[in-house]
Amino acid sequence: MDYEVVDAQVSPTGRLEVLSRTEAAQLSDQGGGGLHTLYRNCSLAVLNCGNELDDGKELLERYHRFDIRIQQRARGIKLDITGAPASAFVDGEMTRGIQEHLMAVLRDVVYVSNEISGNPRFDFATSEGVTDAVFHILRNANVLQPITQPNVVVCWGGHSINQEEYEYTKLVGYQLGLRALNVCTGCGPGAMKGPMKGAALAHASQRISNGRYMGFTEPGIIAAEAPNPVVNELVILPDVEKRLEAFVRTGHGIVVFPGGVGTAEEILYILGILLHPDNAKLPFPLVFTGPKSAEQYFLRIDRFIAQTLGEEARKRYRIIIGDPEAVARAINEGIAEVRDFRKDMRDAYYFNWLLKIEHEFQQPFRPTHERMRNLTLHRRQPTHLLAANLRRAFSGVVAGNVKDEGIREIEKYGPFEIQGEPEIMGPMDELMASFVAQGRMKLPGKTYNPCYRVVTA
Amino acid sequence: MDYEVVDAQVSPTGRLEVLSRTEAAQLSDQGGGGLHTLYRNCSLAVLNCGNELDDGKELLERYHRFDIRIQQRARGIKLDITGAPASAFVDGEMTRGIQEHLMAVLRDVVYVSNEISGNPRFDFATSEGVTDAVFHILRNANVLQPITQPNVVVCWGGHSINQEEYEYTKLVGYQLGLRALNVCTGCGPGAMKGPMKGAALAHASQRISNGRYMGFTEPGIIAAEAPNPVVNELVILPDVEKRLEAFVRTGHGIVVFPGGVGTAEEILYILGILLHPDNAKLPFPLVFTGPKSAEQYFLRIDRFIAQTLGEEARKRYRIIIGDPEAVARAINEGIAEVRDFRKDMRDAYYFNWLLKIEHEFQQPFRPTHERMRNLTLHRRQPTHLLAANLRRAFSGVVAGNVKDEGIREIEKYGPFEIQGEPEIMGPMDELMASFVAQGRMKLPGKTYNPCYRVVTA
Amino acid sequence: MDYEVVDAQVSPTGRLEVLSRTEAAQLSDQGGGGLHTLYRNCSLAVLNCGNELDDGKELLERYHRFDIRIQQRARGIKLDITGAPASAFVDGEMTRGIQEHLMAVLRDVVYVSNEISGNPRFDFATSEGVTDAVFHILRNANVLQPITQPNVVVCWGGHSINQEEYEYTKLVGYQLGLRALNVCTGCGPGAMKGPMKGAALAHASQRISNGRYMGFTEPGIIAAEAPNPVVNELVILPDVEKRLEAFVRTGHGIVVFPGGVGTAEEILYILGILLHPDNAKLPFPLVFTGPKSAEQYFLRIDRFIAQTLGEEARKRYRIIIGDPEAVARAINEGIAEVRDFRKDMRDAYYFNWLLKIEHEFQQPFRPTHERMRNLTLHRRQPTHLLAANLRRAFSGVVAGNVKDEGIREIEKYGPFEIQGEPEIMGPMDELMASFVAQGRMKLPGKTYNPCYRVVTA
Amino acid sequence: MDYEVVDAQVSPTGRLEVLSRTEAAQLSDQGGGGLHTLYRNCSLAVLNCGNELDDGKELLERYHRFDIRIQQRARGIKLDITGAPASAFVDGEMTRGIQEHLMAVLRDVVYVSNEISGNPRFDFATSEGVTDAVFHILRNANVLQPITQPNVVVCWGGHSINQEEYEYTKLVGYQLGLRALNVCTGCGPGAMKGPMKGAALAHASQRISNGRYMGFTEPGIIAAEAPNPVVNELVILPDVEKRLEAFVRTGHGIVVFPGGVGTAEEILYILGILLHPDNAKLPFPLVFTGPKSAEQYFLRIDRFIAQTLGEEARKRYRIIIGDPEAVARAINEGIAEVRDFRKDMRDAYYFNWLLKIEHEFQQPFRPTHERMRNLTLHRRQPTHLLAANLRRAFSGVVAGNVKDEGIREIEKYGPFEIQGEPEIMGPMDELMASFVAQGRMKLPGKTYNPCYRVVTA
Repeated sequence: MDYEVVDAQVSPTGRLEVLSRTEAAQLSDQGGGGLHTLYRNCSLAVLNCGNELDDGKELLERYHRFDIRIQQRARGIKLDITGAPASAFVDGEMTRGIQEHLMAVLRDVVYVSNEISGNPRFDFATSEGVTDAVFHILRNANVLQPITQPNVVVCWGGHSINQEEYEYTKLVGYQLGLRALNVCTGCGPGAMKGPMKGAALAHASQRISNGRYMGFTEPGIIAAEAPNPVVNELVILPDVEKRLEAFVRTGHGIVVFPGGVGTAEEILYILGILLHPDNAKLPFPLVFTGPKSAEQYFLRIDRFIAQTLGEEARKRYRIIIGDPEAVARAINEGIAEVRDFRKDMRDAYYFNWLLKIEHEFQQPFRPTHERMRNLTLHRRQPTHLLAANLRRAFSGVVAGNVKDEGIREIEKYGPFEIQGEPEIMGPMDELMASFVAQGRMKLPGKTYNPCYRVVTA
Repeated sequence: MDYEVVDAQVSPTGRLEVLSRTEAAQLSDQGGGGLHTLYRNCSLAVLNCGNELDDGKELLERYHRFDIRIQQRARGIKLDITGAPASAFVDGEMTRGIQEHLMAVLRDVVYVSNEISGNPRFDFATSEGVTDAVFHILRNANVLQPITQPNVVVCWGGHSINQEEYEYTKLVGYQLGLRALNVCTGCGPGAMKGPMKGAALAHASQRISNGRYMGFTEPGIIAAEAPNPVVNELVILPDVEKRLEAFVRTGHGIVVFPGGVGTAEEILYILGILLHPDNAKLPFPLVFTGPKSAEQYFLRIDRFIAQTLGEEARKRYRIIIGDPEAVARAINEGIAEVRDFRKDMRDAYYFNWLLKIEHEFQQPFRPTHERMRNLTLHRRQPTHLLAANLRRAFSGVVAGNVKDEGIREIEKYGPFEIQGEPEIMGPMDELMASFVAQGRMKLPGKTYNPCYRVVTA
Repeated sequence: MDYEVVDAQVSPTGRLEVLSRTEAAQLSDQGGGGLHTLYRNCSLAVLNCGNELDDGKELLERYHRFDIRIQQRARGIKLDITGAPASAFVDGEMTRGIQEHLMAVLRDVVYVSNEISGNPRFDFATSEGVTDAVFHILRNANVLQPITQPNVVVCWGGHSINQEEYEYTKLVGYQLGLRALNVCTGCGPGAMKGPMKGAALAHASQRISNGRYMGFTEPGIIAAEAPNPVVNELVILPDVEKRLEAFVRTGHGIVVFPGGVGTAEEILYILGILLHPDNAKLPFPLVFTGPKSAEQYFLRIDRFIAQTLGEEARKRYRIIIGDPEAVARAINEGIAEVRDFRKDMRDAYYFNWLLKIEHEFQQPFRPTHERMRNLTLHRRQPTHLLAANLRRAFSGVVAGNVKDEGIREIEKYGPFEIQGEPEIMGPMDELMASFVAQGRMKLPGKTYNPCYRVVTA
Repeated sequence: MDYEVVDAQVSPTGRLEVLSRTEAAQLSDQGGGGLHTLYRNCSLAVLNCGNELDDGKELLERYHRFDIRIQQRARGIKLDITGAPASAFVDGEMTRGIQEHLMAVLRDVVYVSNEISGNPRFDFATSEGVTDAVFHILRNANVLQPITQPNVVVCWGGHSINQEEYEYTKLVGYQLGLRALNVCTGCGPGAMKGPMKGAALAHASQRISNGRYMGFTEPGIIAAEAPNPVVNELVILPDVEKRLEAFVRTGHGIVVFPGGVGTAEEILYILGILLHPDNAKLPFPLVFTGPKSAEQYFLRIDRFIAQTLGEEARKRYRIIIGDPEAVARAINEGIAEVRDFRKDMRDAYYFNWLLKIEHEFQQPFRPTHERMRNLTLHRRQPTHLLAANLRRAFSGVVAGNVKDEGIREIEKYGPFEIQGEPEIMGPMDELMASFVAQGRMKLPGKTYNPCYRVVTA
């Protein structure tokens, strides 16, 4: 199949990036130290907006001829683009929102490479060092703004939800927007896009002209989940964990829409953080919501949490079904508490410094047989550690079931061995099965066949 | 049934109207010369946004306790509101867009009463006088702005179209918005709202922060078709004909979506104008469009036009089915011609002075047996006069079939007598029947029973 | 002598006026009903900015070839200008501020002619009618804006003061501007310009980007006192009295700088109003100020007021010599009282409705022998009436001494006869003599020779 | 003598800086690694605006109790200020312009310390490395903006010029501002302030609301030359040489007003750069100007240049006496050439990358007997090297004559020995003598007594 492409020379309008000669050279350098490949691939992902596909590899193959080159001109930068997806253009003109996204890619690729990576100022071996890096990236992207009211609502959920669920995310976004709340998502379609569209319309009704539609992504995911052009603050964080930290330090509340296993993992991530004793008194509104038809998704997750992490964990979230207005009100009330708390504690509205995130949450977990064997999944440990371990187990199980690399590992070495209590592993089996039953997890085989077995320590 | 109401004191923000003491007194005066009743009823209609109902009478009964009073304060105006529809408020705060609409009502009610009605400057007995009044009302509403590009697309169509047609109007609005075009409609739901929502999202994608969503209404219709809050330029024209003239003098092109008989009448209105010999060379893009499922609606109208007004008339419009992008491109190309023409002719972009509108198009037609008998419906007259007469016949037939007053007239005096050629009356019968068949015209009886009979002159 | 002139075609930028076809025709019409002459002359005055001259006649002679024609274009208005003073242009481009002034002239000439003069809505035989007209003119000029703080300081004083006095007006303007106060003057050089320049610099220091530099003028005076281009809200009121009323209804306080007899007359005007019993409790800060060298000017006026209007009158103003900061603080404190008063009384910040101005203050006084004879200048009448009569006597005396027409009247019919108490006429003689001694009144003869004589009733 | 001081807690408005916790701690840290002392002293200098004094030492003594502390709050930063000069406040409120300057100090102190000093990315041993650092500091200060027209005019000259010369700088600034040019100076009074005030008024006349009044300073000079509050882009460069480089890379033309020896040194600096063969074809408008009374200052410098650097050097500048409009026109024309050149060469309008600045111009020259002896002052070397050496000789002579340290060196070791041709040293003697005669150089003794003697190589 052939895909329509466009060659264009674009003089971006709006906020332009000012590059030094060295920086411009780096972006064009295809050699070892250069940033060209990263820059090119992220740019392509941004340009592919509107064309949904499942993985980045396909994107690169589809537009293998694509290239982007920076030209310095008297008035600023010009971009020479060849072989770009035609969908980024309207009658030959590149959509302004996409132009801005290209600038954001350029800004973040240069900044992370020059100012963050390998900069001795940031001690990535400590929690503080990682947080400081996240702070600097967000500040450089102009995301951290002195604001008079906390108002950023992070929305999580699946990017391939059904039409009814999608319409529901729009309604929730609309109710958030009517209350002058802004939306921050992981970019991409589905639950990432619906709330922004809803909020944008509500902002128009409320004559809010500076509504924020923030999209946080990272190079590994941007290809599959291109930012929709409504996103007016795009940040490309360097990896999954910094992206997650950006969400929880920037957002003043989180709404979780239905999704699949990834969404469940995100729920365990935020619960693992909120259950840390240091965060016990820190207010953080967290609402799981969907239309009536999605109720089972959250009820199953809720039961799993009750069975494993216990009632304490259930107190950190609310489940609201089929009531967008109630969601917006709940978030709004929660944010009022956040405001009071930050004011009292003199913590910035624009960055949640006080939230304790342990270093292990800031580092990637790549499941191997050895790492899986070393997880300890029993309730004789602090709940937040159990949550962290559950998230990892979860991650591994998902990989073993559906991810290329994971499946091959399992084929080669047999199932993962996990030191898990039956009281935990049983519910996990059930949860996975329910996802399959709801059609939220595509499995290679017909019946759910666990890729792990429980061993005794 | 009870409707939730709210009492509130509102200090409008944004653009405030500055009233003289006399003007404020007029709005509060319930006596003969005062404007209070008109002001109150239009304000209620605006506040009822989001609650669809069919007629204004029901609205007034539903919120019979409603009142609005102007309080002068040091910083400007305050509004004391009692018994207002709760839907205008979000958690007790009135939506900003609706606040602005209240200000627009106030502005236009005062201006039309004080500066237009009974002002000897405007000679309503002439076409020029009426046009001048329309110009002044629009200018006072700040609608006439020196612009560098014609970009106002008027969208007409039904307010009770089905979901598929509604989604289609959004897609067309989106394509218009991507091309930096603005949308002007008659306010209200359906085809009045969809294009605005689409355009608003597209404007966000294109970072167009000054998008215009213009709503032109009049006191007789506002109750049934309340402006949606995205409308950011609301004008209450004094009557139906001035509202129609406002559309065609402000818009640079017209898109007609499916509707019912009212939409067909609007089509005859614009064709009647465009077919005037003085307008022969004046470019005016006119597109009829809908999803595939609505094709029949336009094919039937097209056939009727061919049979009655002839091929010349068909040259003034294009029918595009199921292709929003093509619609936007066609309008855009047409507007480019409008721009060139106005530039050459030194006619303002913001007001179509050169469009010839005969005085009879500027005056209401209220069908009576006598007036209907005096219509001459044959092709031995200039096409634009035939179009004008057809529009009137149409108006009468619709009234005789579906409007309270018209039906009573028919019951009392028998069917209208029309001096019509069979070559015209036949197609009219067919068109009406097709509307019934398509479910676009609700009739009291099951079968279509013409309310007129043809007589020979 | 030859004056450099420029022919130019100007497409004004910024806020453009939108004219109807009729209005544009009126401005071009040189016949009886047309406005061309008035429009042309005011435009010329505006363009002559920077070239000081004493009267309008000289201006018209100097640039007798000058003309201005309106061309309607697609994007709005174009002005065809011939024979304009070169000083309005910088390297062939017309200064933007002057372009805006041309638009203001156009706006006010059209509005006053079409909407005010001869409009039966305004009953000029009543005080309320005149005030309503002033309100409408100011509102149309967008001067009346809902504001959150009263902040308009009217500055009066001479337009031909010396350099030291001029520098002083700048310092006062600077101190006003530092306190976020805006400046309103009669346009022109000297005390009309200095405070604006000072305020503009202070606003820059305070990052106030919406500073208001308001200039109120009228056709009879604009030629001699062209608005300086810093003026960003120019209004051409139709006559002297409406201009004075515009000052006192728009301003929240008045600073009077040294001037000549005209300034003294303005002092009597405002005192005449403030001494009206209805205004007794109405706060209105009024400060007379100048550098040390100008002290005598105000001391003499102060003495005259004490001798004629008495101590009550002296309570309505403060004299502050050589202390710009104290002036600004005094005005600021006075305005705080104005704010409280208006808030309590629910009177608008933007228009002083509550100030009582009697109808006779709203009408011109043209001194004739008969009118002068009928003035009653004794203290057996309410002080505010005495002030009104004094202002007229003053006006007559000035005319008899220095104005063409007045001098001729005196030559023809002998001195004016005034029914004045010696206790009033004596101080008047002295005051006039002091003005001459201070070089503030240019007299034809060397010694001051009163043009009136006192008669007994 | 006692100086009025104010304690205040300031919540800066406008653009706020967002600090990380580490950065805030650094600014408060009074220990070795902390930035508190630098931050405090620069802040004090900024607050002392309006009070002229000759050196920073006096400032620190006068306000020895002064301190400034950063408080993090939910909405951003608060500043706790004690013992600040009262002149920074208006009725207890800190002037907004000064608030912004405090933010600029904070921004630059943090950035230079954290991102520039000791950062291995910048190789200060190379010309490119120093330039890159200057670029980064200016970019971080938001000075480098993609612009559509070069329009930055650097104004140099003395800070203690007389009133006539000061008024003249205002007139030149006014003429520049009328032509939409912006002004960049070294901050402080005199020729640093006059052009900005003039330009600000002209910008108001031209309705230019985004006029730039850029002030480049450095910690060693800011105390003596506090930025006036009109400056709306303040940058604190780390040292004298980077400040000079910032001027010549940001400015599109330079106007030199009369000054003293420092101004003459700046003239030699820019000539030394422009005479480099690599810069031969690079357009760079350079105008020396002053009122008629200052003509001698420039004639003497001109003669000195002719005698030493020759006619080639004289081609790089124009001397215009007593004609502000001609100055503005000359600069404007020169800038048009700059624009064409940069466009052709694809060099940024916002940063003069192509200007060659040799590394020795980027490094401080501190005159010692040894360094002075090693200068070679003859014409048997390329002109630009001679210019560089002359600048150094000049620097040494000035130090030996008037600077504390220099005078002590001379007293201790006798006069500097310079290997200078008589053809160069003679003119230098004369030039110095002329400065003394014009009262532009204050010398300890009455007669000019050279602090050097010429030796043969």
